[in-house]
Amino acid sequence: MNLKSLPVAVLMALAAMPSADAGVMWGERRAAWLAEAEAAKPMLVRQVVRPQSIVQAVNDSAAYQHWRYAPAGDPSEMLFSRNMKDVGSVTLDFGRHMTGYFTFHTKTLSRCQDAPVRLRFFFGEMPAELNTPLDPWQGSLSRAWMQDEVVTVTEVDREITLPRRLAFRYVRVELLGASPDFDFALDDMYCTAQSSAGEVTTALEPGCRQDVADIRRVSIETLRECMQTVYEDGPKRDRRLWAGDMYLQTLANRYSFGNYDLTRRCLYLFAALADDDGNVMSNIFETPEPHAQHGSHCMTYSLLWNSTLLEYLLDTDDVATARELWPVARRQVEAALGYVGDDGIYRHSYERGTWIFFDWREGLDMTVPMQGAVIYALDQTCELARRLGLESEVGDWPALADKMRKAARREMYDRGRGVFVSGPGRQVSALGQTWMVKSGVVAGRDARRAIETALAMPDVCMPGTPYATHYLIDAMIMAGMPDRARDYMLAYWGGMVAKGADTFWESYDPDDDFISAYGFSPLNSSCHAWSCTPVYFIHKYPGIFQK
Amino acid sequence: MNLKSLPVAVLMALAAMPSADAGVMWGERRAAWLAEAEAAKPMLVRQVVRPQSIVQAVNDSAAYQHWRYAPAGDPSEMLFSRNMKDVGSVTLDFGRHMTGYFTFHTKTLSRCQDAPVRLRFFFGEMPAELNTPLDPWQGSLSRAWMQDEVVTVTEVDREITLPRRLAFRYVRVELLGASPDFDFALDDMYCTAQSSAGEVTTALEPGCRQDVADIRRVSIETLRECMQTVYEDGPKRDRRLWAGDMYLQTLANRYSFGNYDLTRRCLYLFAALADDDGNVMSNIFETPEPHAQHGSHCMTYSLLWNSTLLEYLLDTDDVATARELWPVARRQVEAALGYVGDDGIYRHSYERGTWIFFDWREGLDMTVPMQGAVIYALDQTCELARRLGLESEVGDWPALADKMRKAARREMYDRGRGVFVSGPGRQVSALGQTWMVKSGVVAGRDARRAIETALAMPDVCMPGTPYATHYLIDAMIMAGMPDRARDYMLAYWGGMVAKGADTFWESYDPDDDFISAYGFSPLNSSCHAWSCTPVYFIHKYPGIFQK
Repeated sequence: MNLKSLPVAVLMALAAMPSADAGVMWGERRAAWLAEAEAAKPMLVRQVVRPQSIVQAVNDSAAYQHWRYAPAGDPSEMLFSRNMKDVGSVTLDFGRHMTGYFTFHTKTLSRCQDAPVRLRFFFGEMPAELNTPLDPWQGSLSRAWMQDEVVTVTEVDREITLPRRLAFRYVRVELLGASPDFDFALDDMYCTAQSSAGEVTTALEPGCRQDVADIRRVSIETLRECMQTVYEDGPKRDRRLWAGDMYLQTLANRYSFGNYDLTRRCLYLFAALADDDGNVMSNIFETPEPHAQHGSHCMTYSLLWNSTLLEYLLDTDDVATARELWPVARRQVEAALGYVGDDGIYRHSYERGTWIFFDWREGLDMTVPMQGAVIYALDQTCELARRLGLESEVGDWPALADKMRKAARREMYDRGRGVFVSGPGRQVSALGQTWMVKSGVVAGRDARRAIETALAMPDVCMPGTPYATHYLIDAMIMAGMPDRARDYMLAYWGGMVAKGADTFWESYDPDDDFISAYGFSPLNSSCHAWSCTPVYFIHKYPGIFQK
Repeated sequence: MNLKSLPVAVLMALAAMPSADAGVMWGERRAAWLAEAEAAKPMLVRQVVRPQSIVQAVNDSAAYQHWRYAPAGDPSEMLFSRNMKDVGSVTLDFGRHMTGYFTFHTKTLSRCQDAPVRLRFFFGEMPAELNTPLDPWQGSLSRAWMQDEVVTVTEVDREITLPRRLAFRYVRVELLGASPDFDFALDDMYCTAQSSAGEVTTALEPGCRQDVADIRRVSIETLRECMQTVYEDGPKRDRRLWAGDMYLQTLANRYSFGNYDLTRRCLYLFAALADDDGNVMSNIFETPEPHAQHGSHCMTYSLLWNSTLLEYLLDTDDVATARELWPVARRQVEAALGYVGDDGIYRHSYERGTWIFFDWREGLDMTVPMQGAVIYALDQTCELARRLGLESEVGDWPALADKMRKAARREMYDRGRGVFVSGPGRQVSALGQTWMVKSGVVAGRDARRAIETALAMPDVCMPGTPYATHYLIDAMIMAGMPDRARDYMLAYWGGMVAKGADTFWESYDPDDDFISAYGFSPLNSSCHAWSCTPVYFIHKYPGIFQK
C-alpha cells in the first residue's frame, strides 16, 4: 500500500485523524486501514435505462398507501414528440428501481428559444411518494431527502444531467415556466443506473415455487441497489454504511453476487474510523472524506461488525485480513463486557453516549435481547479467534458466555410459561426469544416453546421492521421450526411483493401501510438493505424455502 | 481568418446555414463574417463581489414599487457564523448590480451532515422583485426568467456555483430543508461579476452638477452590465443582442468604455445571420451556436444597424470593415424602399412578416415615425457611402430622401398647428415630431414648434420607454432646445435615480411605478441597455448637460 497514491480527500482524512498518541487505539495502523479501504473502492457498473411507459396516478384505497399507477401510453407518442406546453405534466415509469443519475434532453420544435424554461422533476420509488403533498413538511428528517428538483433550462437542445444521485422508478415532470414564443419537447430522458454488485452467481433449484422466486428476485434487486461504493442502507436514504445493515447485506451477498471485496472495504472503513477508544462506530459517510458519524457508538452494531468479519473469513479464507483486524473485533467485545456485572447480566448505561438498537418497535425492552446479543458476540468472536489460531487471546470468554447464558436462564426466564421476560415490566417480545435462541440460552424444545408461546400471546411485542424480522426467522430455523420460518417469510416479504414492491422496504407492517419511523411515510426508504435477506434464507436452507 | 480554428459550435452553425445558392445573399461571405464575429468574442473581466449587508424588506407606499430594503446587520455576524436553522431566511445586499455567477459555501457547525440540505435562493435586481408573490404566474413571458433557484446540497463543506448566470443586487436565502441532527452555516457567498466593458475612459468636467454625475454613473453601470460577449439588451432578460439596443449602446460606449471591438463583433454577427433576402434580423442569440430569431425582421432595427455601422466607422476609421459590410447596409435600405410608393410615402405591410418598432406605448401610430426613420436611414446610409467613397452605389437616394421629406410635409404636416399628424386618426405623438426632426423634414423654428406644440397637448402620445425618450431628447437638441432636452433628461433619468436605480430600467413611467410590457412588473429588466444613453448626451453635449 502506497500512501502517496491516495486521493487528496483521503490524505485530508488521515491528516484530520488523531495521531497515534498513547490512549488512541491502533495509532498509525488506522491510516493503513483507511488506505486499504480506499484501494478497494469498487468500480460501479453502469446501465442506461429509459422509461417504459407514461402512467396515470390512481387513488385507490385497495392499493398500497392508496396510490397506484395505471399505464397511460407510450412515451414516444405521448411525450417525446409533443410540445411540452401541451403536455404540462406527465409521469413516467422506468419499469424498475434504479440508483443513479438522471439525464434529460430538450428539443426545439418551433422558432427558437427566447427564454429559459423551468421544469420540476419529482423522482419516487413508490406511487404514493409522488402523490402525497410534501409541504408543509411533516417528516422528522430533512425535507431535502425528498427527490424533487426544480431546474431552469437556460439552453434547450442540450442534455442536462441533474447533479444529485437519485433512487427511483417513477418520475413526474411538470412544466413550471415556458415562453409563449417557441415550442419544445422533452424528447429524451434516461437514468444512468449504477451498482457495484455485478452479476448474480446463484440460481434457484428447478421447480422452485413462484412466490419464493419472486421474493428472491426482489431481495436481490434490493441488495443490488444498495451496493454502491459501500454497502448503503438505502440508496434514497440514508445513503450510508451502517454496520447492522452491512451484516445482513454480507449474508445476502454470499448467496447472490458473491462480491467480497466490498465487504472487505467496509470492514476496513469501520476499523480505520473507530473512535479513540477503539469502538466501531455505527455508521460511516464516504464524503467529503471517509468519516464516522460523531458519537454514534451503537453497541449492537459494533458487535455485529465482529460477526461480519467472521462471515467474511468463512466466505473468503482471507486469514490475513481477519488477523489484521482481529484487535478491533476483540476490542468490541471488551467494550460490551464493561457493562456485564459479576452476576453475568448485561446492564446498559446510556451515560457513556453508547446506544443499542434492535428494532424501531416502540416500547421494546432491550434487556433480554441485549443479553443475548452480547453472548452471541462472545460466541462469534471466540469462533473467529479459533479459526485464526488466536484462542489464547479470548481468555475466559467461553466460560463467560456460559455464565451469561446461565444468568439469563436464572434472571430472565419465566420457566412456567417457557418464555423470556424482559426488564422491570417483564415484557415478552419476539426479539427477546429470538436472541435467547441465537445465543444458545435455550435450544431445541425450549427454544421452540419460547418462540411459539411468545408469538401466541395477544400482547407480545412483535418485530416492527424487516431488520428485526430477519433475526426472528433465523431463530425459528435454529429452534427447529422450518415451516414456521418459511410461512413467516412468505407472509412478511411476500406481503410486500403482493403490494407491488420492486425492492424491499425500510418499514413494513402488514397491518399499517403508512408506518414510518419519521412521521411521514413518503420519507421512508423503499429500497432498504436491512430488508434484503430472504435470498440468504432461500439459498442457505433450500430444503426449507425452495421445496 | 482560418476556418479550422473555429469552435465546433460555430462550424455547426455554418453547416446549418443555407449554402450560397442563387437568391441567397452574400453566400459564403457570411461564413467568413461569422468567423470574424467569433474571433472578436471578447474576454470577460471578472470581479468577485461579496454581500455588504443584511437587509430587511420594508413595505412602504412611498418607496418605488412599494418596497425598499433597510440595513439590518452585518453578514459576518448575522449569517456567516450562525446556525442556518436559526437564521431560516435572510436577504443580503451586495451593494451594486452584478451580472455573473453565484457561489456559496456551507460549513458544518456541529456533528456531521447526515442528510441533504434544501435551500432556495431568490436573486433580484429590485426590492419589489423579491417581495411580490410569483405564483400563480401572471407574466406574459416565461416564469423561468425569474431568478429563483432551489438547490439540494448533497454535501456541505463545499462550494457550490449555480449553473445559471444571474443579474442581481439582492439575494434572499430560505432554508427549505435541514436535518435535526447537525448544524451548519451558510458561511460564505459571492458573485463572480463579469463584463467585457473594461475601464471607463472619460471624465466629467470639473464642477459638474451632482445630479448629472449621478445619472452618468448609473448610465455607465447600465452599459457595463449589458456588455458581455455581445451587447445584451438586459443581463436579466432577454440576455441577447438586439439591433435597436445595440445602436444606443454604441453611442453610450463611445463616451464611456470606448470598446469598439465588441461593436465590430456584433455588426458581423448581424451581417452573417441575415436572412436569405439579406434582411438583418432584429435580434441574435449566441448559444448553442450564433443564430437569429426566426422571422424577426424589424424594419426600424435593421435600418439602425446601418447607423451603427456609420457610428463605428466614425469611431474607428475601420474602413475595411465598413466596406466589407457595405452591401448589407445597402440591402437594408433597399428592403425599406420596397414599401415606399411613388408619392414618397412609406406604407408598411405586415403581410411580409416584417414588423416595425418605436416604443411600447400602446396606440402609437407609426406612420409618421416610420416615414422619418426611413428618411433618416437614407441620410445615414448615404453618409456612410460618402465616407467609403461609394457614392456611386446609392444612386438617387439623396433625391429620394428629399422627395420623402416633401411628401411628409405635404401629407403629414398640420401647418396650422405646426405639428405632424400620424395615420387616419391624425395622432399627434412626441415620437412623430421626433422622427420628423431627426430626418430633417423640419428644422429650426418649425422643429421647435412641432415638439413644443405636441408636448403641450393634453392628449399627446408621449414616449413609453427610455428607448423612445432617447430619440425625443436627441430631437430636442437637434431642434435647438438644449434647456428642454437637459430638463427632460434630468427629470426622466433623474427620476429613476431618485427612486433608487442602480442601473436604468427597461420600463419607466414617472407616474406609474408598476408599468410593465409583460403584465407583471417583477418580470421587467431593471438593467436595460436601451436606457443607458444619458452618458452619450452628457459627454457629446457638455455645454448643455455638464454646465
